[in-house]
Amino acid sequence: MNIAPGGDRLHAQIEFALEIDKLKRVIRRNTLMDGSRRENDAEHSWYIGMLAMVLGEHAPPGTDLDRVVAMLLVHDLVEIDAGDTFVYDRAAVAAQGELERKAADRIFGLLPEEQAKRLRELWEEFEERRTPEARFARALDRFAPMLANHRTEGGTWSLYKVTAEQVLENVKIIEEGSPALGAYAAEMVELSVSRGHLARS
Amino acid sequence: MNIAPGGDRLHAQIEFALEIDKLKRVIRRNTLMDGSRRENDAEHSWYIGMLAMVLGEHAPPGTDLDRVVAMLLVHDLVEIDAGDTFVYDRAAVAAQGELERKAADRIFGLLPEEQAKRLRELWEEFEERRTPEARFARALDRFAPMLANHRTEGGTWSLYKVTAEQVLENVKIIEEGSPALGAYAAEMVELSVSRGHLARS
Repeated sequence: MNIAPGGDRLHAQIEFALEIDKLKRVIRRNTLMDGSRRENDAEHSWYIGMLAMVLGEHAPPGTDLDRVVAMLLVHDLVEIDAGDTFVYDRAAVAAQGELERKAADRIFGLLPEEQAKRLRELWEEFEERRTPEARFARALDRFAPMLANHRTEGGTWSLYKVTAEQVLENVKIIEEGSPALGAYAAEMVELSVSRGHLARS
Repeated sequence: MNIAPGGDRLHAQIEFALEIDKLKRVIRRNTLMDGSRRENDAEHSWYIGMLAMVLGEHAPPGTDLDRVVAMLLVHDLVEIDAGDTFVYDRAAVAAQGELERKAADRIFGLLPEEQAKRLRELWEEFEERRTPEARFARALDRFAPMLANHRTEGGTWSLYKVTAEQVLENVKIIEEGSPALGAYAAEMVELSVSRGHLARS
């Protein structure tokens, strides 16, 4: 497009906008809460952004929830190039780092420089999980599919033969971001095991 | 579910979380930017939330962009009950108000009272379009499908025989929220007309 108003910055921002629309076509393993179809990354990002707004009181006091929301909206953009990695596929997770860094270079690089830097820093903060904001964001990112699996009688857990012990490692990540959500998640795991929807190894 | 940790507030918040997942199944008229399929409300909400982060400099100075993002994540929740209304279907738009208010009562009402109030106020602010935040949010809500129609050689404009004059009324709404985006949108309309993808009445 060669549209003048707004100049080069707006032009670059629109190119970025057109590019990130592709996140709607990156399909995750887990399904919607009713099991009707698999979820895409864009609607997943909306969903956990909403969770941050609604479950924010379960983050440590002082957590900047606006920053958590921003981080969650951005956190999966690299998957436009790198694809979604199933959290229980350890080999794929290990190989993913370099792919995602390259994706971040290309995708955030479409933006004017200081904007690219700001959005990339949000993504890196999410990945590094050092701040309370990043730990809470990651907790929500793990919590949502766990809720879906719990609601769909096992969902991807049964489909991919994931064990309760593996799921409990994710519960730890939730707990690190939010003790209350961690306790809720642990309870979901117990219930799913007792109902026969999640197997112990 | 009868899960104890976190108590009644968390229980109510999880019920709300399960309910709003349905937004992923509310289908809009417009397609993705590549025309491959129609868009759903959840991924649309994510998308314009991202646009607020990326195009924020084109809002009036002092606009609270975190509030714009929050408003955009929430703005379509009432459509879980009320359904999506095609912006160019005037009769449907007029009938929509009462349906949406009832939907807001039910859906936000699932949350603890003060949270219900806070989220409902965000939605009402968006609807009333009195604050710079609401006007900018509405501008993005109109801008995104216009971009999609422009990119897909007419998209829903040709499909539903929308005229350039009708689209220009939406351009005004964009202009009210952001003069720069309004100018860009006007230019898209001109280009679409000159390419034969949008008809004058």
